[in-house]
Amino acid sequence: VLDGLRELVGAEHVLVDADVRAGYEVDWTGRFRGATPAVVRPASVDEVAAVVAYCRAEGIAVVPQGGNTGLVGGSVPLDGEVVLSLRRLSSIGPVDDLAGQVTMGAGVTLGALQAAVAPGWSAGLDLAARDSATIGGMVATNAGGTSFVRHGGMRARLAGIEAVLGDGSIVRHLGGLAKDNTGYDLAGLLCGSEGTLGVVTAARLQLVVPPRNVVTALCAVDGVEGALRAVRQLRAAVPVDAAELVLDEGLQLVRTHLGLPQPVTAAPAYLVLEWDGAVEALRSVEVLDAVVAEDEGRRQALWRYRDAQTEAVNAVGVPHKFDVTLPPPGLARFVDEVRTLGSGTTIVFGHVADGNLHVNVLGDDDVDDDVLRLVAGYGGSISAEHGIGTAKKRWLHLVRSEAEIAAFRAIKRALDPAGILNPNVLLPPL
Amino acid sequence: VLDGLRELVGAEHVLVDADVRAGYEVDWTGRFRGATPAVVRPASVDEVAAVVAYCRAEGIAVVPQGGNTGLVGGSVPLDGEVVLSLRRLSSIGPVDDLAGQVTMGAGVTLGALQAAVAPGWSAGLDLAARDSATIGGMVATNAGGTSFVRHGGMRARLAGIEAVLGDGSIVRHLGGLAKDNTGYDLAGLLCGSEGTLGVVTAARLQLVVPPRNVVTALCAVDGVEGALRAVRQLRAAVPVDAAELVLDEGLQLVRTHLGLPQPVTAAPAYLVLEWDGAVEALRSVEVLDAVVAEDEGRRQALWRYRDAQTEAVNAVGVPHKFDVTLPPPGLARFVDEVRTLGSGTTIVFGHVADGNLHVNVLGDDDVDDDVLRLVAGYGGSISAEHGIGTAKKRWLHLVRSEAEIAAFRAIKRALDPAGILNPNVLLPPL
Repeated sequence: VLDGLRELVGAEHVLVDADVRAGYEVDWTGRFRGATPAVVRPASVDEVAAVVAYCRAEGIAVVPQGGNTGLVGGSVPLDGEVVLSLRRLSSIGPVDDLAGQVTMGAGVTLGALQAAVAPGWSAGLDLAARDSATIGGMVATNAGGTSFVRHGGMRARLAGIEAVLGDGSIVRHLGGLAKDNTGYDLAGLLCGSEGTLGVVTAARLQLVVPPRNVVTALCAVDGVEGALRAVRQLRAAVPVDAAELVLDEGLQLVRTHLGLPQPVTAAPAYLVLEWDGAVEALRSVEVLDAVVAEDEGRRQALWRYRDAQTEAVNAVGVPHKFDVTLPPPGLARFVDEVRTLGSGTTIVFGHVADGNLHVNVLGDDDVDDDVLRLVAGYGGSISAEHGIGTAKKRWLHLVRSEAEIAAFRAIKRALDPAGILNPNVLLPPL
Repeated sequence: VLDGLRELVGAEHVLVDADVRAGYEVDWTGRFRGATPAVVRPASVDEVAAVVAYCRAEGIAVVPQGGNTGLVGGSVPLDGEVVLSLRRLSSIGPVDDLAGQVTMGAGVTLGALQAAVAPGWSAGLDLAARDSATIGGMVATNAGGTSFVRHGGMRARLAGIEAVLGDGSIVRHLGGLAKDNTGYDLAGLLCGSEGTLGVVTAARLQLVVPPRNVVTALCAVDGVEGALRAVRQLRAAVPVDAAELVLDEGLQLVRTHLGLPQPVTAAPAYLVLEWDGAVEALRSVEVLDAVVAEDEGRRQALWRYRDAQTEAVNAVGVPHKFDVTLPPPGLARFVDEVRTLGSGTTIVFGHVADGNLHVNVLGDDDVDDDVLRLVAGYGGSISAEHGIGTAKKRWLHLVRSEAEIAAFRAIKRALDPAGILNPNVLLPPL
């Protein structure tokens, strides 16, 4: 089998040495660990198609992997699958300035894309793992991130896709036409399917005009309700590019971890706000205190209090992570309630304008069921942006009906008839 | 069989009289005409599910029908199908002011929705058939319309869906959460599937904040390139809510049909522009002449020159209609070229900012192949917003590869295993 793969992509791109494989067998948080006989690194869509067709014929399961920055175990070979790494598909095409679009390979990192389109355009997408996360993985997981509040997630940015389906066929629709009702929305379907229907090999993205005058502020607020109110007030005044909630416990954790000063008056909660417009927009917002970044260095310094939440939590221990959406009316009550669940320490932060909270529980390994049932009870989503992966599939039934899950299974059988693509991801066992 | 249907929805809601059926058997343009043994009018999603399950068991094909305002023969029983009318699902829920969303039945007309959410909110969708077109049909066809330039089409507005799949199962996901990566995007897949995968029974839509100060202008421009330039200039200055192109031939046709005066200096082309902001934004736009609407009556009068294009064309004869998207660089050349094709009269108008043109050919019944091949040659779409229906499926291969069409067929088999939902629509015969 390995010889067959070597013939398809070249011997040097089938990694079998244990020490080389190791980096592909575990996710970066250390929570999901498996083993693979080989990591295959194709260099083109045709090579990807050949590998998938070969694996289908041989009955070999495949886990597609981009930057391996996912948070639900969706890109780790938990069950001995071959890892199909897309990192070599790393070319970025020229920016189409008339349409504001660009086509790129799946292996391009978000950071590389952001650099390639600047300064005329912005990707309209950002997240803390920007220098590792790849566009292919971000399409496969319908990634969100901090600019969702302004521009939506990856599905909203996707103007075209190229992918290899489970039967080895290549579907390609990269023309980027704004309006195109010629058949089913394959791009939107593959986006968020977590590598279970097809392997994303390229994407065309709709770029956005960069903000003219970015203002970044770190604000102290009296709690979650106050944070929601402040965000509503700011959104009524200016286009808001980011609105991130950090609770005091999380801020203090980052301060300890990185040795940072208290950036603003201590308060129950903080907001990192970023908008396009005048500093004076802050006057329309009720906050306890605020600091505004005067330059890019200061801006990055303020963002550290938010971006370093995940690494600070991981430094303390291996957390149970929940990425959930709450309907706005119940959000503040949910934050109070979830912090009382279990026996561990609960750190909550997230994209508060979208109702999207990242809940991290340290020191209690039996809390998952309680947290996710609480979310479902509020009418929320058990996965806002991270996806279901292997980590959440047990709980999919909390938020999706039997009929919906049956429809998912039927679509899976349709596009991956042999069931070789990410077989342990998203769909619960029958 | 009819007795079975009568049991499910009540005898008075199974229409069998020839004169009553007649209105459901032909589309409003008169180009697509068929026959049906019965029109079934269920009153609830459960009744829809029962009808679909019954028809599946009996092997009866079904054509779902909303307002029957489609333009590609997608809602007409061309092959003796039962018509499943969704018009009785016409309730509109309360507007959720915090989320800016509303849930409604499939049979609600766009006009009724617009009235129900005003004045606090806008549907973010508009088209000339607003008082007949239903939300269910607009979801099924991923309808676009005049406000696409600002807010995107129906798929972008869709926050949740309820539908009955081909096996009679009900899928419902109407929570309207902004971020929700819990499985495949069924809502986006069903949107634009033209009733071939499921029958849309309800939708939750994301509303938009109405423009604060709508300005409507009818501008004379020196041609299509001038129109494109003017739209780019206006978009750089203000949020543009509509940018509609009418050529002089079309304007004169409407004038003759409705007995209207010449509204502005005669020119090769005209733009109906609508934006949110000051009248002075017009100064940043290079046009030959312009008139601005000073009140709602005058605004509607200006829109008549655009909205009446279709009825004026239909009054002259039965046109061959093409709803196409061209990539911006080739758009003006395409307009010149398409008007030289065939022996008929060609009226072109459309949503020029999106590259979306409506091409109407009168007096030449053999022009379809030439027009659609020309579009595909430019890298365009053979259906921008109307869909494929029965009218365009012969040409789907011009813009979709064999692999893509095979994937469509696999998805169709997955969600409508008996092939009873709109069997003559979208997919070409094998």
